[in-house]
Amino acid sequence: MNRVFNFSAGPSQMPLEVLKEIQNDLLNYKGIGYSILEMNHRTDAYYSINDESRKLVLRLFNLDDTYDVLFLPGGGTSQFSMIPMNLANKDDLCYYTISGHFSNKAYEEGRKFTKAEVLASSKESSYNHIEKIDINKIDKKAKYIHITVNNTVPGTCYKEAPDTNGITLVGDVSSIIFAKEYDYKKFGLLYAGVQKNLGAAGVTVVAIKKQLIREEAQLEPYTPSMYVYANHSKTNSIYNTPPVFSIYIIGLMCKWIENCGGVMQLEKNALKKSGMLYDIIDNSKFYKGIVIDKEDRSPVNVTFITPNEDLNKKFIEEAKEEGMINLKGHKAMGGIRASLYNAMPMEGAMKLAAFMEKFEKNNK
Amino acid sequence: MNRVFNFSAGPSQMPLEVLKEIQNDLLNYKGIGYSILEMNHRTDAYYSINDESRKLVLRLFNLDDTYDVLFLPGGGTSQFSMIPMNLANKDDLCYYTISGHFSNKAYEEGRKFTKAEVLASSKESSYNHIEKIDINKIDKKAKYIHITVNNTVPGTCYKEAPDTNGITLVGDVSSIIFAKEYDYKKFGLLYAGVQKNLGAAGVTVVAIKKQLIREEAQLEPYTPSMYVYANHSKTNSIYNTPPVFSIYIIGLMCKWIENCGGVMQLEKNALKKSGMLYDIIDNSKFYKGIVIDKEDRSPVNVTFITPNEDLNKKFIEEAKEEGMINLKGHKAMGGIRASLYNAMPMEGAMKLAAFMEKFEKNNK
Repeated sequence: MNRVFNFSAGPSQMPLEVLKEIQNDLLNYKGIGYSILEMNHRTDAYYSINDESRKLVLRLFNLDDTYDVLFLPGGGTSQFSMIPMNLANKDDLCYYTISGHFSNKAYEEGRKFTKAEVLASSKESSYNHIEKIDINKIDKKAKYIHITVNNTVPGTCYKEAPDTNGITLVGDVSSIIFAKEYDYKKFGLLYAGVQKNLGAAGVTVVAIKKQLIREEAQLEPYTPSMYVYANHSKTNSIYNTPPVFSIYIIGLMCKWIENCGGVMQLEKNALKKSGMLYDIIDNSKFYKGIVIDKEDRSPVNVTFITPNEDLNKKFIEEAKEEGMINLKGHKAMGGIRASLYNAMPMEGAMKLAAFMEKFEKNNK
Repeated sequence: MNRVFNFSAGPSQMPLEVLKEIQNDLLNYKGIGYSILEMNHRTDAYYSINDESRKLVLRLFNLDDTYDVLFLPGGGTSQFSMIPMNLANKDDLCYYTISGHFSNKAYEEGRKFTKAEVLASSKESSYNHIEKIDINKIDKKAKYIHITVNNTVPGTCYKEAPDTNGITLVGDVSSIIFAKEYDYKKFGLLYAGVQKNLGAAGVTVVAIKKQLIREEAQLEPYTPSMYVYANHSKTNSIYNTPPVFSIYIIGLMCKWIENCGGVMQLEKNALKKSGMLYDIIDNSKFYKGIVIDKEDRSPVNVTFITPNEDLNKKFIEEAKEEGMINLKGHKAMGGIRASLYNAMPMEGAMKLAAFMEKFEKNNK
């Protein structure tokens, strides 16, 4: 089969040129006589990959060296525990906004380790919009406010970092990292599983303001060593054997992003790709968007339905036959979801848009 | 540079034929139209990789379905926390034998979550042997006895699973997995980072007797969700986005091991490879083994010194010039260490043996 367009919400499509570079390096990395998969993490070759990947991530975030970049295992789910364990103690107040499936999980996990409170929620309306934060509700003693910046399941997105009245802002940027510009300095901590916009599943990027990093002795005594940011920070993110290959790919992806013109250009691309699909939805009585407020629409996860469940299924199946895969919505949401991350080419979105028009004509 | 022999203690050498298969699959996995690096974990393609890798691991351990196989992030260091958090509560007694750098770390971490006690230790003698367990010291109420089956740093190894008087035996088999046969049924829990004998850094294999798996509600309330074995077990080890690529490689490595003749044959190979080096050490007044009791010598990590530190350095440098790399001992131990894991070909060990003889002749 020829190369498909993979609209998966993650792990998802990667740039063909990056895949080819990995393939090329696979038996003999840069001529050193062995594979990147065989590289010991206590070697100059790895130190240079690690340093470069960390620097590139910081640069794409447009953050300075008051922030540290860590590469950690265990995905966003591990961060759901690490964040409260590191930024708060058990009696501290911490806020969560509930804008989707994953922010709800973050909140439920946060409750195990802190006094977690919900600051704003769209759960009652099935996450079909982003509920605004009422700044007057914020207690100044809170340790942080956690938001999921882009919600992969419903397809919503914060368009700007919200005002927190001086409280540390923590952002899950898993599905929007380097696909949209933000003023990242407004965040004290940012995290992202890389498997959507920044590489292959197996590592999580954390950017944290250094002044927020606390020593293990300051944390609750039941914090696992691997869950202490300070342990990773002090060892330049080589606290134990890191996932060498995944971190090498982060570096390749960052360079690819810079070669594409940086985050600014990728944001333009995302708006153009998603705009094509949103335009069809808005001009159609056949398709219906899941997100009610256009302002809250995600530029990378476009969610919609057809008039009925059978047609949703038919849409997904026929698209697959034409080489467009993984268009099924998340099981919590149903319907259709097209994820248009950094590596989805313009042609992929154009092909899907054309298919949507044809499908509507044939089935209305 | 031509392909080197990589004697790294981990991440370490992989079989060339496995690397070639990965390279071949990299742009278009088995003809499905996309890369293994782009594979969503909620697809039939991934379910089949996950199921097969789990089955193969169980088969190579020669364990039945009273055990579950989990693929977890965070390396052995995460297991140092997960084991006490899952197998015990905070007032429970748990035993550790201290036979090296890593078992000491496991003990220090275990103390945070349980009443951990040392049952046997060779720490006072710089881990130059394996201290026997005195079975009469064992309190029947203990939840488990943790041992590091092969000690990568000093180069020692338990030749058999020790008798525990009925207490659950937990074994770190990171550096010996599928390189030596054991009666694995004697263990309640086995774990291994894969980056030595079973693939590329990025995932940890856990085999656990199902009856030892406890629900999250039974554990201490501060156990992170990702650290609950039950959460992974109930989801067939797809609790959140797994490191798809690393798990795919486990499957390839298991098949390669079976094609080599299985663990029995690889143990023979390891004994032959390490035997060549140990013979030279034993017949030499120039080289001196670090392990005092031959019975405790590891078949996969051969540690030794030359008459002085300058010669150690010279040995490592000249070997490197001849295409044999990563022979430096662990910083806690010094000297020279040759790691001869599953993928080190016989020719690698032969070449190193010949070099050792030449180096002795030229420098004594």
